[in-house]
Amino acid sequence: MTRQYNFCAGPAALPTAVLERAQAEMLDYRGYGLSTMEMSHRSAEFVAIAERAEADLRALLGVPDNYKVLFFQGGASLQFSMLPMNLLGRGGRANFVQTGIWSKKALAEVQNLGLGGHVAASTETSGNIAVPRQQELDLSDDAAYLHYAANETIGGLAFDYTPRARRPDGAEVPLVCDMSSSILSGPIDVSQFGVIYAGAQKNIGPAGLTLVLVRDDLLDQAQAVMPTLFSYSAMAKAGSMINTPPTYAWYLAGLVFDWLKNDVGGLEAMDAINQRKADKLYAAIDQSDFYSNPITSLNRSRMNVPFTLADARLDGEFLREADAAGLLNLKGHRSVGGMRASLYNAVPEAAVDALTAFMADFEQRKG
Amino acid sequence: MTRQYNFCAGPAALPTAVLERAQAEMLDYRGYGLSTMEMSHRSAEFVAIAERAEADLRALLGVPDNYKVLFFQGGASLQFSMLPMNLLGRGGRANFVQTGIWSKKALAEVQNLGLGGHVAASTETSGNIAVPRQQELDLSDDAAYLHYAANETIGGLAFDYTPRARRPDGAEVPLVCDMSSSILSGPIDVSQFGVIYAGAQKNIGPAGLTLVLVRDDLLDQAQAVMPTLFSYSAMAKAGSMINTPPTYAWYLAGLVFDWLKNDVGGLEAMDAINQRKADKLYAAIDQSDFYSNPITSLNRSRMNVPFTLADARLDGEFLREADAAGLLNLKGHRSVGGMRASLYNAVPEAAVDALTAFMADFEQRKG
Repeated sequence: MTRQYNFCAGPAALPTAVLERAQAEMLDYRGYGLSTMEMSHRSAEFVAIAERAEADLRALLGVPDNYKVLFFQGGASLQFSMLPMNLLGRGGRANFVQTGIWSKKALAEVQNLGLGGHVAASTETSGNIAVPRQQELDLSDDAAYLHYAANETIGGLAFDYTPRARRPDGAEVPLVCDMSSSILSGPIDVSQFGVIYAGAQKNIGPAGLTLVLVRDDLLDQAQAVMPTLFSYSAMAKAGSMINTPPTYAWYLAGLVFDWLKNDVGGLEAMDAINQRKADKLYAAIDQSDFYSNPITSLNRSRMNVPFTLADARLDGEFLREADAAGLLNLKGHRSVGGMRASLYNAVPEAAVDALTAFMADFEQRKG
Repeated sequence: MTRQYNFCAGPAALPTAVLERAQAEMLDYRGYGLSTMEMSHRSAEFVAIAERAEADLRALLGVPDNYKVLFFQGGASLQFSMLPMNLLGRGGRANFVQTGIWSKKALAEVQNLGLGGHVAASTETSGNIAVPRQQELDLSDDAAYLHYAANETIGGLAFDYTPRARRPDGAEVPLVCDMSSSILSGPIDVSQFGVIYAGAQKNIGPAGLTLVLVRDDLLDQAQAVMPTLFSYSAMAKAGSMINTPPTYAWYLAGLVFDWLKNDVGGLEAMDAINQRKADKLYAAIDQSDFYSNPITSLNRSRMNVPFTLADARLDGEFLREADAAGLLNLKGHRSVGGMRASLYNAVPEAAVDALTAFMADFEQRKG
């Protein structure tokens, strides 16, 4: 068995220790005589797994008591529909900061549902290489909430600050954040947000699970008519079990939270590791004319590092050689081209060392 | 490692051979150096897994070419919302046959969405012990489709025939079937249906995946406004990958299809095994005054067998002793009480033999 270094943007690498534990427990979870994926979601055994996962997540992120932690299906993209249905019941418009493909899709879905939407700021015309500053956010008079993506997975653009969501009249509205590709990469202050959501398949677990953290006072602002399974309030009342949840993904997320807490030592320790990993890769890019990354220093993503070669004709060769060297999934998103190295929590520092060594060697031979 | 016999109604037992293969491939899928859950859903490796799963399912069920096979998230319960949004765009009402809790929930959700709904037949007042016959189905003049559940998981009631969906004027409308707890238990004639759907967590794979088979001519009958991820048409165009699908559940479903095809020998072989299993358990129930099942012979479910003890005060003891004997999850649904043995494909005949032996012994000691 040879594990390769996996720089995939998602579904992404999981910690080897987590996979080993899942492997050991696959046919018989701790003497119960069955797999966690064969357990009734309402059994005492599974409820204990589910509650432990939530408790560990709350401890890791310091989730205040007045927030619910909900486990959904459908991916972050389904939240693009759920969010307006849950938050626009009292009127007003969703406001958006557009910094790349994902935050743009969130607006497009609100418009698809016929619910309007206002662009409070967009960096599209300038190429999404820097996030807008606080004073550039121009919310509408009827803003019901402000949505942004903390980290744009495709563009590799990350917020260096947490925006404040104020209407022109000064009234504060809930801040809603897509943290799919940055959650759990370091500490955050949950209390600054109305809703945080994240697809699991980067830093949480396997695809098929979506986390939603929602402040209690936002649970009664839903539209009157929507699918029962879309309701944050109904899901909160049912402990995320209105119907059968994705139990195995939930279990694996719990193993990841346990790994973060006990093997890594918490989010401050994870933060330091992620900073070192990103610093090493950006240094390798910046010290060379052969490699480049277009994002302004302040907003460079630690999780997703896109880079290009000076001569794009070498892209194919770079990717083939990297693959042969055990450095997988470095191809950039099809809408951007070039390369992208995703450095999520489960990507070890040794993977970055191997990548930068390969890059230096490739440049020496081809540059 | 001791595998116990697991009679859970869902999430249910999976074939041990499937879990062993998943275990072996957990850290390194066939030399690729990563787990299937760490693969990009758009990678050549995963696309091959996904396509193979669909091809095997098509072969098993004999799915005609004019049907799409879609892989959704959200469970069968989310289909309760998706179905009317996809099928009522040209007007008309959804019609329902009510034979238990699940078919009733399907109607309740259509009503929750403000889309009306007509009860073409209901067996509720007579206790859901026999399904309505064809001539009792009373569709509305404006019926757009007829929905029923082939097998009621909680009540243990199964259709012995495939209904025809005709309006009073004789016009045929699409037949929509919830097959969550009976799909793949034996051969079916897909061409009789407009839509077949099934949550995975009984006979397909782990919870978090939902299969939808839809006839091509029904792909253009959707409401104008609905979540993008609800659209059968959009999902079909995107090969079920509008956004990241639940890749690991999809992979495991593929292993189950492969097991059915190659280890079991196809659905006719599976059908014979399931018939033997059910016959043995119902025989054990019927030959005793100590155990009873209320369902009329013709409509007894082969997948879910509820039964009660003559003296309900012995229920707790029965369940504790069964559990100690390695016969797990025999407790009936909380809305029904008593016992329920689910005999899905992955429950081996030896499990039924062990259960009936235990039942005879328990009766001898306590009856």
